[in-house]
Amino acid sequence: MENGGRLTMIENLWKGIALISASEDGYKAGEIIKEKLRNLEIPVVHYRYQEAKIEDIWKCYNAVIFIMALEGATRIVCKYAKAKNEDPPVICIDDKINYVIPLIGGHWGANEIAKELAQMFNATAVITTAAELKGKLSVEKIAEILIAKIINPESIVRVNSALLRDEIVCVIGANKIPPLSQNNIKFNSEDCKYIITLDYNKEYDSNKIIVKLKPLKLAIGIGSKKEVNLSEIREGIYKILERLNVDINRVGVIASIREEVRKLAEELNVKFRLINENEINNFTNPCLTPPSKTLTELGLKGVAEVSALIAGGKSSKLILRKIPLSKSITIAVASYEEE
Amino acid sequence: MENGGRLTMIENLWKGIALISASEDGYKAGEIIKEKLRNLEIPVVHYRYQEAKIEDIWKCYNAVIFIMALEGATRIVCKYAKAKNEDPPVICIDDKINYVIPLIGGHWGANEIAKELAQMFNATAVITTAAELKGKLSVEKIAEILIAKIINPESIVRVNSALLRDEIVCVIGANKIPPLSQNNIKFNSEDCKYIITLDYNKEYDSNKIIVKLKPLKLAIGIGSKKEVNLSEIREGIYKILERLNVDINRVGVIASIREEVRKLAEELNVKFRLINENEINNFTNPCLTPPSKTLTELGLKGVAEVSALIAGGKSSKLILRKIPLSKSITIAVASYEEE
Repeated sequence: MENGGRLTMIENLWKGIALISASEDGYKAGEIIKEKLRNLEIPVVHYRYQEAKIEDIWKCYNAVIFIMALEGATRIVCKYAKAKNEDPPVICIDDKINYVIPLIGGHWGANEIAKELAQMFNATAVITTAAELKGKLSVEKIAEILIAKIINPESIVRVNSALLRDEIVCVIGANKIPPLSQNNIKFNSEDCKYIITLDYNKEYDSNKIIVKLKPLKLAIGIGSKKEVNLSEIREGIYKILERLNVDINRVGVIASIREEVRKLAEELNVKFRLINENEINNFTNPCLTPPSKTLTELGLKGVAEVSALIAGGKSSKLILRKIPLSKSITIAVASYEEE
Repeated sequence: MENGGRLTMIENLWKGIALISASEDGYKAGEIIKEKLRNLEIPVVHYRYQEAKIEDIWKCYNAVIFIMALEGATRIVCKYAKAKNEDPPVICIDDKINYVIPLIGGHWGANEIAKELAQMFNATAVITTAAELKGKLSVEKIAEILIAKIINPESIVRVNSALLRDEIVCVIGANKIPPLSQNNIKFNSEDCKYIITLDYNKEYDSNKIIVKLKPLKLAIGIGSKKEVNLSEIREGIYKILERLNVDINRVGVIASIREEVRKLAEELNVKFRLINENEINNFTNPCLTPPSKTLTELGLKGVAEVSALIAGGKSSKLILRKIPLSKSITIAVASYEEE
């Protein structure tokens, strides 16, 4: 948590937090929350309810926070909620930031997010689940955290039931799966009936239930003012990779509208992709962060996210929503399948 | 409130509170809540979620309280919620009774009910609506509280907008409308543009917008063990009438399976209706309180409520769910239209 120096859950919400406010008071509260989260380098976008495409937001963010009375949030949730495993963590905060209320997704992170937010704002986290219930890892969640694709989805159900039963599951090719509880995970051992492995070409004992994960490549998109500061960008890239728990060798491409960034890509031994404004403005993706005023004035839809997604190709998905590295640099990351 | 000697909202929930619990811990918490409310003579029924017909409960009670984690309650609410004006106040209480959370119906009583419950159980009422928003009276609510039928529904919309705008509305034929705020109500005066009147045969100034209410008659159902204590029943009837804010002349019939009660009805100058077991067991109504073990053992579906509803005839509706007057007596009230 903040005071203890660890934001266990919130800082792992790479796809970002969507704040949705309904009233003027709610909007003011939302801006306060946004600033605080931005200072912690959490990607966050604040929408007015009237302008929010909630159906897209539902799929595009790691958490959705309604800043309004609970009844309003509940009726909106009722419109968009699908099922326990499909919905994002949804939290309601009142306009006065007195209460932080996990509404759905309690076992998928909403409780932890609410606790961390409540601590930040000296509010009450309204936790209503039994204390002993904790978020359970699932194969899908592990694949997401390890930025990998599940090759054999037919094994998911059996390994998920093992995880639910708290049976020991081996994870091969990773050392940790932050931020979820992982008491029942044994790393880099084959000594389990159930194995989730990033070493997907290897043959395993046929008695074991194996989920094979193929690591995805990363496309890094850089937005920068005309004066490009390469050392700042380099530092930012390494900081981001640490946050995603991956090495530089997972980065397949660095993309930017600034030709100067090519030098840094070459230095890092990573392919460079120059993006032009025309490409940017022809590109669409429902998960893009709405452009800032400055970008809109420049006639651009976005830079960092669009660059990453274009460079990643058809299969690319936004995994780190853009965050500012400094006043002049933004960074975003997409994952994609190597062809 | 309890400590101040006044339960402003809860004691007016004549149609009762439905408690719905999901887990064993929730059931235990629900029983604690039930006992406390019963001691305050609030009609309350505790259902296990698996057995609860929520669609009926939604229409039959003045408030619905889920004792479970908020996510569960939210997903159930999503299944049954219709619209702001149609749904009952719905509250969620966690298994530990730490939080009392108005989920929907905040402006229709849920906030006040939650505050009163929280005070009873030393819990936190999670109020998320802006402080200045208060429950507004509506014509429908006033008619319900005054136990009357709206004769000219075409005037409802205009008087409701006046109430919403906080314009002064005159109410003729009543002295109070507990428990809702009524700063903008002027009693027994014709000095308003908008008038709600129980004096429905009178002609009013044609420039005024009039809602005419026809007072409904009451049918009182008495359940009693074989040893009938008439003075206890008499006392109970008067207590109940005080609670409903009506005089004995509104009572059209007293009904019981005990012939002995006829004497009391004659004394009170009210018609008596003897109910037989056969009638009881052929009677159905979705709002009936599920029978107690004792009744089930006696092969009876219910006594007080069924007697009241049978005696009231086709138009009768349960308005006071059965409550015990003593260990051996229960009472329930239905309203009906005089033919």
